[in-house]
Amino acid sequence: MKTNKRPLILVSNDDGVNAKGLKNLIEVVKPFGDIVVVAPESAKSGMSHAISFKNPIRLNRIKEYENVKIYSCSGTPVDCVKLALNQVVERKPDFLVSGINHGSNASISVVYSGTMGAAIEGCLNGIPSIGFSILSHSLDADFSLARKYSKKIFEKVMEKGLPQGICLNVNFPIIDIDELKGFKVCRQARGVWKEEFDKRIDPNNRDYYWLTGNFNNFEPDAEDTDEWALNNNYASIVPIDIDYTSYDTIEKMKENYF
Amino acid sequence: MKTNKRPLILVSNDDGVNAKGLKNLIEVVKPFGDIVVVAPESAKSGMSHAISFKNPIRLNRIKEYENVKIYSCSGTPVDCVKLALNQVVERKPDFLVSGINHGSNASISVVYSGTMGAAIEGCLNGIPSIGFSILSHSLDADFSLARKYSKKIFEKVMEKGLPQGICLNVNFPIIDIDELKGFKVCRQARGVWKEEFDKRIDPNNRDYYWLTGNFNNFEPDAEDTDEWALNNNYASIVPIDIDYTSYDTIEKMKENYF
Repeated sequence: MKTNKRPLILVSNDDGVNAKGLKNLIEVVKPFGDIVVVAPESAKSGMSHAISFKNPIRLNRIKEYENVKIYSCSGTPVDCVKLALNQVVERKPDFLVSGINHGSNASISVVYSGTMGAAIEGCLNGIPSIGFSILSHSLDADFSLARKYSKKIFEKVMEKGLPQGICLNVNFPIIDIDELKGFKVCRQARGVWKEEFDKRIDPNNRDYYWLTGNFNNFEPDAEDTDEWALNNNYASIVPIDIDYTSYDTIEKMKENYF
Repeated sequence: MKTNKRPLILVSNDDGVNAKGLKNLIEVVKPFGDIVVVAPESAKSGMSHAISFKNPIRLNRIKEYENVKIYSCSGTPVDCVKLALNQVVERKPDFLVSGINHGSNASISVVYSGTMGAAIEGCLNGIPSIGFSILSHSLDADFSLARKYSKKIFEKVMEKGLPQGICLNVNFPIIDIDELKGFKVCRQARGVWKEEFDKRIDPNNRDYYWLTGNFNNFEPDAEDTDEWALNNNYASIVPIDIDYTSYDTIEKMKENYF
């Protein structure tokens, strides 16, 4: 069948099946293949690579139009990808795209991100995978810049592929579309979220805590980092390695520790 | 105050505050300093680096004896560490230990693991951090081997420290204590969980899915991997880098992609 020769593109996110960023990402990849979307039924930000095995999950068929099939799943972003691969698609997808996330996943946010959880799960399964994010949490954010340039990045990955075990963490600044200076392939900036918990008292006089926090960039002047790129009107592209081993440390520890 | 000069050791896990593995880990580190435990109030396996910011979290004082203070938290393992650092301890802990997890966190399981989520969060905050796991999911597993050798590893880390940005993922095989051949500092084996969802029909005639799965080791004969070490009666020690950037790929992509 001719249609089977078109690339199969799996789409997910962590903001949920109704997010504006997801709708924009579907439009970006729709010209390039058959699209299957499996996204969380509600927002699952900050879910990282979490999986559900203590509770069963549900899959719901949402809608189908032209070359797009959309499902929602009650689980995490990684559950969405696993369920898509095992129960929804009939063959292995050629590409996975995740996002476009409402909010930055640059620097250390990659470890908390459900958007990147989905991309990493695709990568683990041998699928060239990209997570896209913009630096605005607004539900109604303007995705025109992100749409234009995520299309260019996706086309490049379609053409060249990605190395085995590597996925991309792409972030876009919030600037006018003609202010973007280009892409920077860069490293994850070193930094940490400094959490300030907002402690409150409930009507029963018991304490509870809301997690808030501010990002603390340890190296704001380092021009080879994603944070620098984004602050200087570039889109940042960080290649993420799913092998977390520190090879340098293996050698040091063999000599000095054990 | 003299007591402030003793090391402060933060303990967490993902199996919950009542897990046998946690009790064993407290006993391992108790001789070495003042112990603060903040662990999930119920089992939070597979939570990876997830954080709670859509719902508030609770902190409960469980008990205090000798040099040990135990709290539970309603959130994820990473929430436990964040809440501990911001609301419980009066100074930055000198060490963080997480576990001892009931079940392997070797190879790619590191990305799903709440035990390692807690250790990575400690590492992000500049605290030398170790996650410990045994290769048995049994609630009543025998921790005598893990206790003996996690003490040795902890003592070595107390003596030598850990490089900035590196934490340890330690796994112990399930063998008799005198069968252990030693430690192997090694790399994360390449592999993937092949998920087989168990599809069921609920009483209302709707489908639901349980996540199950089998680990698929892509390189069972590679002697420098954690899986090989564990299968050959060694404890595995993988140094984990919290910088997920693939530096090799940056160079390749600069030349060939963008």
